[in-house]
Amino acid sequence: MSTRILGIDPGFDRLGVCVLEKEGAAETLLFSTCIITSKKDSFEARLASIATELTVILKKYAPTELAIEKLFLANNQRTVMNVSEARGVLLYICHINGLSVHEYSPPQIKVAVTGYGKATKNDIALIVPKILKEPLDAKLLDDELDAIAIALTHSAHRKMNSWK
Amino acid sequence: MSTRILGIDPGFDRLGVCVLEKEGAAETLLFSTCIITSKKDSFEARLASIATELTVILKKYAPTELAIEKLFLANNQRTVMNVSEARGVLLYICHINGLSVHEYSPPQIKVAVTGYGKATKNDIALIVPKILKEPLDAKLLDDELDAIAIALTHSAHRKMNSWK
Repeated sequence: MSTRILGIDPGFDRLGVCVLEKEGAAETLLFSTCIITSKKDSFEARLASIATELTVILKKYAPTELAIEKLFLANNQRTVMNVSEARGVLLYICHINGLSVHEYSPPQIKVAVTGYGKATKNDIALIVPKILKEPLDAKLLDDELDAIAIALTHSAHRKMNSWK
Repeated sequence: MSTRILGIDPGFDRLGVCVLEKEGAAETLLFSTCIITSKKDSFEARLASIATELTVILKKYAPTELAIEKLFLANNQRTVMNVSEARGVLLYICHINGLSVHEYSPPQIKVAVTGYGKATKNDIALIVPKILKEPLDAKLLDDELDAIAIALTHSAHRKMNSWK
């Protein structure tokens, strides 16, 4: 039986989204994108446009599990609050569309993908295509790559849980 | 012409909500409540129950303007992130229901209601019934009182703006 995992690297300005299909040991990237909201819109209109774009993806690909990054406080506290606000909308939209929610911290994602908790973006960019057994689009944005890494992390954790 | 203001003191565990009707100089409290979510539910289910309860209130009272408290980082950063996530859902639901969004900081609320930026909860509890010209329900919860204070703040700012 196959499972579709929605990977999200949360943000309000730009957020990475992907859908990963897992069938047995095989992991296939069905789709990835970067949702970008307009700085000209009000913050609440940007939240609504994220919700609308995400809903279209959910209807089209019908993933059943969400893998999303846990946030940690960074230097810019206002940004963290705005990303959290967007993250709330993402969790809400996924929940009302029946997805289960699975959260992973940045070190968990690095360990799952590269085996090393302090891996760099470059390490991840090198390893992800090897896991997927396909080259990544050269135009892939950072947030999109992060979303794929998060989906792969959840896929790896599902494997571990199935061993129990 | 009358205007209905939705006042919200944001939270994910408990949040205060009120609807204030403003007709000329008269301010009438039409409704207030405290939405409480169950600790037994997942966080995303709690977000969804907030959205559902808020939507019922919006349909019933049809406010057109949201007045909501701006968050500042407190000691418990995890709580701030969770409150921000709930706040994102509140902004989203209000936006898709056509409300304009107006944000006020705690000092702005204190000044608008009591004339003093360092007013206490007690000061606010004493002054709000005088502004509304009606006693407050003795069982009113803190969050509900805060929601009323936020709605009154927006009402006062609307007055100021209409003088321009």
